[in-house]
Amino acid sequence: MSFPDYDQVYKALMAEPGQAFRLADYPTRSEGLFDNKKAARRCLKEDAAAIDFLQDKLYAEGRRSLLVILQGMDTSGKSGAIRNVFAKTTPLGMGVKAYKAPSKNELARDYLWRVHNAVPKKGEIKIFDRSQYEDVLVVRVRGFAPPETVEQRYEQINAFEKHISENGVTILKFMLHISYETQGERLQDRLIQPHKRWKFNPNDMDDRKMWPDFMRAYETAVQRCSTDHAPWYVVPSDSRTVRNALIARIVRATLEGMAPEWPDHGYQLEDFDFS
Amino acid sequence: MSFPDYDQVYKALMAEPGQAFRLADYPTRSEGLFDNKKAARRCLKEDAAAIDFLQDKLYAEGRRSLLVILQGMDTSGKSGAIRNVFAKTTPLGMGVKAYKAPSKNELARDYLWRVHNAVPKKGEIKIFDRSQYEDVLVVRVRGFAPPETVEQRYEQINAFEKHISENGVTILKFMLHISYETQGERLQDRLIQPHKRWKFNPNDMDDRKMWPDFMRAYETAVQRCSTDHAPWYVVPSDSRTVRNALIARIVRATLEGMAPEWPDHGYQLEDFDFS
Repeated sequence: MSFPDYDQVYKALMAEPGQAFRLADYPTRSEGLFDNKKAARRCLKEDAAAIDFLQDKLYAEGRRSLLVILQGMDTSGKSGAIRNVFAKTTPLGMGVKAYKAPSKNELARDYLWRVHNAVPKKGEIKIFDRSQYEDVLVVRVRGFAPPETVEQRYEQINAFEKHISENGVTILKFMLHISYETQGERLQDRLIQPHKRWKFNPNDMDDRKMWPDFMRAYETAVQRCSTDHAPWYVVPSDSRTVRNALIARIVRATLEGMAPEWPDHGYQLEDFDFS
Repeated sequence: MSFPDYDQVYKALMAEPGQAFRLADYPTRSEGLFDNKKAARRCLKEDAAAIDFLQDKLYAEGRRSLLVILQGMDTSGKSGAIRNVFAKTTPLGMGVKAYKAPSKNELARDYLWRVHNAVPKKGEIKIFDRSQYEDVLVVRVRGFAPPETVEQRYEQINAFEKHISENGVTILKFMLHISYETQGERLQDRLIQPHKRWKFNPNDMDDRKMWPDFMRAYETAVQRCSTDHAPWYVVPSDSRTVRNALIARIVRATLEGMAPEWPDHGYQLEDFDFS
């Protein structure tokens, strides 16, 4: 059983900064990255343990942080990815910020105000369940802001992400990419399964009707905001197992690249009296 | 292999509200609550899974929340308890607030300001790693505030906790109780083990010198602030395994007592067109 190496995963998923991007080139099912489901599950298990260990070091070091942004249509699996990729990670030094419709208080400021407020602390891994990208996705599709306002936001977001990345925040952005058919099945599932019913929201059906518009909005956002300091990864997400395993691969690779180290204060046992 | 039932654990650990409380009556090693270490580990595993399931329901329900306060001397195992009791719980709908020395901005307000700011949202489990009790523990022992100021705080804290508990927050308070000897061993361990060295802080040695003062401050805090709406539990914590298992028992029992339910919106499959 072999696992795809980091370069393979990067190559398959990354929207190359500065290159043309067509969402149609990215599958919603992975094509042979894992031998089979069992391999994906095994890989995820190992990566989740490695992520835990690396996060401990990142926290101990306390100098830098990781921001993981998850975007995707309803039922694409943002919650499931959070649960599984970070299954081994202790809640201390981790946080999730779930973005809902902005409050009155948030709307009284610019749209990045609440995002800046939620950036990870030094040493922390922060996950955004939705993000600033809602302001160029649902806002664009539903016309919550004028087109010229939305148009300005791509560069504003790039500038903001550059700013925080230059100040110690490593950024990963994942688009959880599912097919229209998969969403249909999962929405129906939500109405059937007792423990999933609470997740069903009739508004999701309205978004579903605008699927092509959402896909165009995603395509534009990924095209214009995949940058060297904050690349977008398009994750085939029709299979939950593969989705989780691929995200975990990239999170692990990124943390290894950051190479956090246990800090050392230099104190020795003989410096103190323990009686 | 049998597990201690909830009543046994409550009886052994709870500081009965309104009763006299002597810390000396509470052991730092558990006395026969578990058959052996293996039983404690097994019990913890089952409880962690149950806590995860109950937390999902609490989050889905979105009406109430749980606040878990962890207090204890350095090395008593606050981080370890967080990691292990919530090992199965997804980070979504959970949060940890670690209390350090207050910032300038926090000191510009009363000491409960930052605590109120950190209360759990509806549907959330929030863990306080240290808490408002620092303001009657280290603050009292080190004289950071005048005695008459500290004296007022016990009732202020009780009133604050009553207020939030009447507004949907269930409160659990755990004192992680270790012996002076255990702390000595663990501090030395921190200087020896490469992955623990970063946790060593020479200031902890100064606190250690004031051990009896700290124990008296804990005794007073538990005595005066164990209330019906926010009881204190004194957890024997010389064994990490037993400590985690006992906390998990009480967290699970509490969540079961809250009995969260999947909410239902009443929509049915046939109400929608999924084509």
